[in-house]
Amino acid sequence: VADWGTSSFRLWLFDQKGAAIAERRSGEGMLSAGPDRFSAILERHLADMGVPDDLPVMICGMAGARQGWIEAPYVAVPAALGEILDGAVSVRGIARRVLIVPGLAQRREDAPDVMRGEETQLAGISGLLGSGSRLVCMPGTHSKWVETSNGTVAGFRTWLTGELFSVLSKQSILRHSIGDAPAPIDAGSAAFRNACETALKGEGDIGGALFPIRAAGLLHGLGSDDAAARLSGLLIGAEIASATRRFGQPEKPIILVASGAVGELYAAALGLAGHAVERIDGEEAVRAGLVEAARRHGMTQGVRS
Amino acid sequence: VADWGTSSFRLWLFDQKGAAIAERRSGEGMLSAGPDRFSAILERHLADMGVPDDLPVMICGMAGARQGWIEAPYVAVPAALGEILDGAVSVRGIARRVLIVPGLAQRREDAPDVMRGEETQLAGISGLLGSGSRLVCMPGTHSKWVETSNGTVAGFRTWLTGELFSVLSKQSILRHSIGDAPAPIDAGSAAFRNACETALKGEGDIGGALFPIRAAGLLHGLGSDDAAARLSGLLIGAEIASATRRFGQPEKPIILVASGAVGELYAAALGLAGHAVERIDGEEAVRAGLVEAARRHGMTQGVRS
Repeated sequence: VADWGTSSFRLWLFDQKGAAIAERRSGEGMLSAGPDRFSAILERHLADMGVPDDLPVMICGMAGARQGWIEAPYVAVPAALGEILDGAVSVRGIARRVLIVPGLAQRREDAPDVMRGEETQLAGISGLLGSGSRLVCMPGTHSKWVETSNGTVAGFRTWLTGELFSVLSKQSILRHSIGDAPAPIDAGSAAFRNACETALKGEGDIGGALFPIRAAGLLHGLGSDDAAARLSGLLIGAEIASATRRFGQPEKPIILVASGAVGELYAAALGLAGHAVERIDGEEAVRAGLVEAARRHGMTQGVRS
Repeated sequence: VADWGTSSFRLWLFDQKGAAIAERRSGEGMLSAGPDRFSAILERHLADMGVPDDLPVMICGMAGARQGWIEAPYVAVPAALGEILDGAVSVRGIARRVLIVPGLAQRREDAPDVMRGEETQLAGISGLLGSGSRLVCMPGTHSKWVETSNGTVAGFRTWLTGELFSVLSKQSILRHSIGDAPAPIDAGSAAFRNACETALKGEGDIGGALFPIRAAGLLHGLGSDDAAARLSGLLIGAEIASATRRFGQPEKPIILVASGAVGELYAAALGLAGHAVERIDGEEAVRAGLVEAARRHGMTQGVRS
């Protein structure tokens, strides 16, 4: 099974019982693969793992986009998680059996939105989502907030938080304050937490708080690590304030699907916003979703997926 | 007199009566000039204009920054407009008399901010600002909103609106929707006006409205011109909502200091926000401020400035 995103590629080999027995990671995402090289990249990694030719592969992510390997057309919301997985599309013209999970589209005129990859993570936590309504926060380059109802994706929204951090810290005037290599951001730092609170208090209106990061460097000697932490806190706090404005305060804890450092930052920020949080590892979620998709397509019988 | 900014250089020749008799414009801003080439660039343009060696020159803008020609240290607010001009700093070690107007710094810990160039525009409209309190909107790469009281700059704030438009339309995923060369944005277009109203209604919280520009392209065929207009409307609307949150609704009309197309967009957006507006041409304002600075430093006696 593989999660093939815009800028990364992760491949896991599972045994018939659903236990991961090997993995490969690379930066050969959709952008660097280009339309012609998906098959060659996949086969090279599988060969390096000693995988036989008849082992089928289940893929999710941007490999199913129009600019990807083959287009796996969007499924419209509301959509049941099991049906999304059932709709995985076969890659034609190659020897190996390869399926790609479709993404989701929200076609509402007032809130058009799309996702590819997160639907598989959601399917991987379907046990949690099975009954009642839940709000799921899935941080990333393009953070998704998803409302589910009895195992169905009811609707979702995207915030550009990770991408905004990247372009503002590297391409805007704030690059002079943040520099090339700020330290990893500490979720417990005053700079991060104060900036979160500023954004929450401003209800997501952070436009007037960005330039002061630069001015604080010029006038008050704000260092690059604190500048990065402040930008991150503003953007994550604004996302949470904005999402809370849209979705309200859910009855049950918000499910936070994230891995590593990003998970720490969001957990801290959600706490500052007064949200109870249930944390799920993002990589475990996507693997579980892919294995479930493979099972639904009969890939786990006779061969390993 | 010259307005020497980050990315542009504008030079005007005035006669003794304060009438402009020639001008030069170039892209040789602070960034491309570098610390060593300011004098050479200025002298080349003056020679091309046939200006004698003893004609003094008054400059405002980023040429006075630490990374500029020489540093003209910030004047702290509150600051009287006349005193700011009186503080223009002489460039040493060159034959010609050249002075640079200082920028302004707001040193408040909770709202640090700086400007260079806009203080000269403000001085250029000091007649308007002479009595009572006024709120001035100065759009640009880094938009400034300034509160003045009886000819004194009381405080100000910066929004990164122009820079956000640039980095989001060129460096983020929205570049796929906006393309390389969107048409000039029409202040009367539905795309611009609707986006303004979305941002105003959201009180500056536009984080959740950015990705839908991309999704509307994928799902509903939104064109690149409308995508650009929508991004511009969101960012300008958010700036106005955010500034209104900080400064409240002023008693007198907001003074809009801007030129050309940007002025049209802000005038339309301020109207949608319910603000009365008094428009001033930004270039006329900076020229008037520079001529007043030159007059205060005795540059207009005997030679032309």
